[in-house]
Amino acid sequence: MVNVFHQHLDELNDLLVDMARRVGDAVAKAGAALLEVDTAAAEAVVAADDEVNALQFKVDDRIVELMTQYDPVATDLRFVLGAVRISVDLERMGDLAKHVAKSVLLRAPAPVVPESLRADFAAMADAAVRISEKLVGILAERDYLQASQTELDDDELDAIQQRIHEQLPSLGYGPQTAVDAALLARFFERFGDHAVRISHQVVYLVTGDVHLDRS
Amino acid sequence: MVNVFHQHLDELNDLLVDMARRVGDAVAKAGAALLEVDTAAAEAVVAADDEVNALQFKVDDRIVELMTQYDPVATDLRFVLGAVRISVDLERMGDLAKHVAKSVLLRAPAPVVPESLRADFAAMADAAVRISEKLVGILAERDYLQASQTELDDDELDAIQQRIHEQLPSLGYGPQTAVDAALLARFFERFGDHAVRISHQVVYLVTGDVHLDRS
Repeated sequence: MVNVFHQHLDELNDLLVDMARRVGDAVAKAGAALLEVDTAAAEAVVAADDEVNALQFKVDDRIVELMTQYDPVATDLRFVLGAVRISVDLERMGDLAKHVAKSVLLRAPAPVVPESLRADFAAMADAAVRISEKLVGILAERDYLQASQTELDDDELDAIQQRIHEQLPSLGYGPQTAVDAALLARFFERFGDHAVRISHQVVYLVTGDVHLDRS
Repeated sequence: MVNVFHQHLDELNDLLVDMARRVGDAVAKAGAALLEVDTAAAEAVVAADDEVNALQFKVDDRIVELMTQYDPVATDLRFVLGAVRISVDLERMGDLAKHVAKSVLLRAPAPVVPESLRADFAAMADAAVRISEKLVGILAERDYLQASQTELDDDELDAIQQRIHEQLPSLGYGPQTAVDAALLARFFERFGDHAVRISHQVVYLVTGDVHLDRS
């Protein structure tokens, strides 16, 4: 009985891994759409977000099924609560990738990213893709030792966002370009925050250490 | 046994109501701090956010206690999962109030809000306070008929944000002022989004209707 229960928990975890993969694909495609002003790619990102949202419902349904069929111990309950939290963060990461895609569509055929910030946004998109790839590994393997690795990419995202916000006033852009760039930088930065929250959840679930950042 | 369990669920709900009250206080104080450039009030908002975060931990602990002591049916499980989600949204609302307070501290003694946008931000702060007050009532009474009322305030927050973003390019402000105003407007707008998500959760928990917006 316990083994069957843990097998179900593994299946629950597979749903989270699936969400993380899709969210990673979304941010990769949204980043490329942003830099290339690729509206077809941007529209694909917007459309694909529905599947991420549907997976979040599936996580809930699976949890209720599990909990009514079995009588889990406290450790397993913590895992289940962690899965709820993780699915909320993943769903939000999907939204943020979608926000990036939508800002491309809003200004196309003009680029949202001004030429002098292109390298910064390319670096943000790269860091977001890296953090997603690590997240898939951390969730798939419950690899809490790798969990701290997400903080490196998140620190980079924070630093680039701060640099963009500091530079913006002196770059000579109009307010619309500046606002677009500031919001875009925030979308990537928040994407990183959610990834770090998830990896802290995994550390907590595996080791019991409360490194949860409730900033 | 069932009655005792439901009494515990009520206590769990009391924690959510407590979180909602504190978050409402935070956004009211942050809004006033913003309009009056009141750094003492802003600092109080930043400091008080720790208590909201601590309540989120308490919600988790209470849930694990409950679930290990009792063997809840599916309906009660949905309530418990809803409580987890609601606490995540409330914690995030606390963060957003804190972000408003921090932006006051960052630019003080200069005001963050330029004179010509003062009325718009006063209206956003008012709508955020109203939505919080409704949320406290909805959570305290499980009043799903009131839940749709949060959408009115949220629509107002969305409309003001959009107006601010559209006006910004032509108001003649420099990029820093424009970026500050755009981010502030986004903090209030997101605050409203989380309130609506929570009220949809309450509708779902009470009626079983899936009006959950997973945007």
